[in-house]
Amino acid sequence: MGPWYDEVFADRVRFGLKIRRVLYSGQSDHQKIEILDTEQFGRVLVLDGVFMTSEADEYFYHEMLVHPAMTTAPRIRRVLVIGGGDGGTIREVLRHPEVESAVLVEIDGQVVEVCRQHLASIGTAWDDPRLEVVIGDGVAFAREADVEPFDVILLDGCDPVGPSEGLFNESFFRDCARLLHPDGVFAMQSETPVFMREVFLDIVHTLRRVLGHAWPYFGSVPLYSAGMWTWTFASRTVDPLDLIDERAQRLEAVTRYYNREIHLASLAVPNALKPVL
Amino acid sequence: MGPWYDEVFADRVRFGLKIRRVLYSGQSDHQKIEILDTEQFGRVLVLDGVFMTSEADEYFYHEMLVHPAMTTAPRIRRVLVIGGGDGGTIREVLRHPEVESAVLVEIDGQVVEVCRQHLASIGTAWDDPRLEVVIGDGVAFAREADVEPFDVILLDGCDPVGPSEGLFNESFFRDCARLLHPDGVFAMQSETPVFMREVFLDIVHTLRRVLGHAWPYFGSVPLYSAGMWTWTFASRTVDPLDLIDERAQRLEAVTRYYNREIHLASLAVPNALKPVL
Repeated sequence: MGPWYDEVFADRVRFGLKIRRVLYSGQSDHQKIEILDTEQFGRVLVLDGVFMTSEADEYFYHEMLVHPAMTTAPRIRRVLVIGGGDGGTIREVLRHPEVESAVLVEIDGQVVEVCRQHLASIGTAWDDPRLEVVIGDGVAFAREADVEPFDVILLDGCDPVGPSEGLFNESFFRDCARLLHPDGVFAMQSETPVFMREVFLDIVHTLRRVLGHAWPYFGSVPLYSAGMWTWTFASRTVDPLDLIDERAQRLEAVTRYYNREIHLASLAVPNALKPVL
Repeated sequence: MGPWYDEVFADRVRFGLKIRRVLYSGQSDHQKIEILDTEQFGRVLVLDGVFMTSEADEYFYHEMLVHPAMTTAPRIRRVLVIGGGDGGTIREVLRHPEVESAVLVEIDGQVVEVCRQHLASIGTAWDDPRLEVVIGDGVAFAREADVEPFDVILLDGCDPVGPSEGLFNESFFRDCARLLHPDGVFAMQSETPVFMREVFLDIVHTLRRVLGHAWPYFGSVPLYSAGMWTWTFASRTVDPLDLIDERAQRLEAVTRYYNREIHLASLAVPNALKPVL
């Protein structure tokens, strides 16, 4: 058997995968990119030593980032994804036939290239004619873009360090709000309250200030090993409980984690978090 | 900083905790018992190298094992716990004032002694006069006990290896069914479908054969690192959705994970598991 590859969190916890081999290792302008072939999760994307996504469990994360927003927003014609260079998020977005155009803004073109080559089972929608890929800084895009508002904006960044750091602050959220249709929905991954409680709470509270309403929702991502993962749904007018049944029902023919019961269940808040949310 | 202590699963995945010191290490007649003082989870009980429970996250596990059964069973006067030598499960059981007598059958008296000494914040109910502690084999107890039926039976065993192996098979479940009141509820931890899918499915299907109805329910236990943990609720007559609102509402003053929304949400089944359950 091969060696272990460990992701270490704050020198307190580590999660290790036994690897068969390293399929790719390179340094881009932004970060170290690795693709590991592992015993448990199949191929795994690692950025700066942090496990991002895997062939075996990517659907937990991508379905839950995408579908609560896409099954509740009144219109889903125009969608913006910031980050998401592995292609999983945009794949789930483009499952919805109502989508007419989708823009993906990824800062690191090398992540897209490496994932297209080594994680082809995740990024199956790169050639969809509705998709425009912009290699560039999502923070600058949100600040400067002069385009028709988006119906849904999804933020698919990693942890708030390194190239994703600017994706976790109020001025960036305000720029996203400017690009969001008044009845649009914004959703993002918002870390785990188990290991990153303050970051999680800060995301929810900041989005609430910016858009008026924000709801964290809960699920699990086995690769992230914290037992409980969250995403946050924010909107000026849309309630995440008001799901459009026909859209969700249609999805259930293809999703592996998401369905209508999971959607509603994900909004239940553990008791200890209620007073601080 | 101290060294790492890793739990290794099937030579494929490992989860490591940075430890400050080892507070206890000993070999009982049944297993190796360790208490670690860790940076992330406080004190952790380890049996034969497997993380069992911790000061920091024990409530995720114990509240979810206990309260779905205790808030739905029509009567909760007599409760049996098999396993659970750390005392967390029986503590949650005894929160319910309707309980008149509770029996805990733990095979390893040394686990109880070590936990009473080192994990006193978990086992806060050892001196409750309603509690009878039996140090003995739960399998033999279930087979041989000649007692009034129990309203609720909770199985708090570890993985199906070592001293817990006999707690995961049909003949044991049939013995528990014999001890269960016709309108009683049986609940147990049932592993994670992420790493132990066949064990999980086997528990649900076997309980369904034995008691007629069984529902897995889902949550997270950060220390178990798989992202998704399950328990299974089984009963001849009780539906886990029919919760007795007054009991659950009363609990919410003290629980840290469990509440009525979490109870109902935990029964949502991820899409890929529906066809096989």
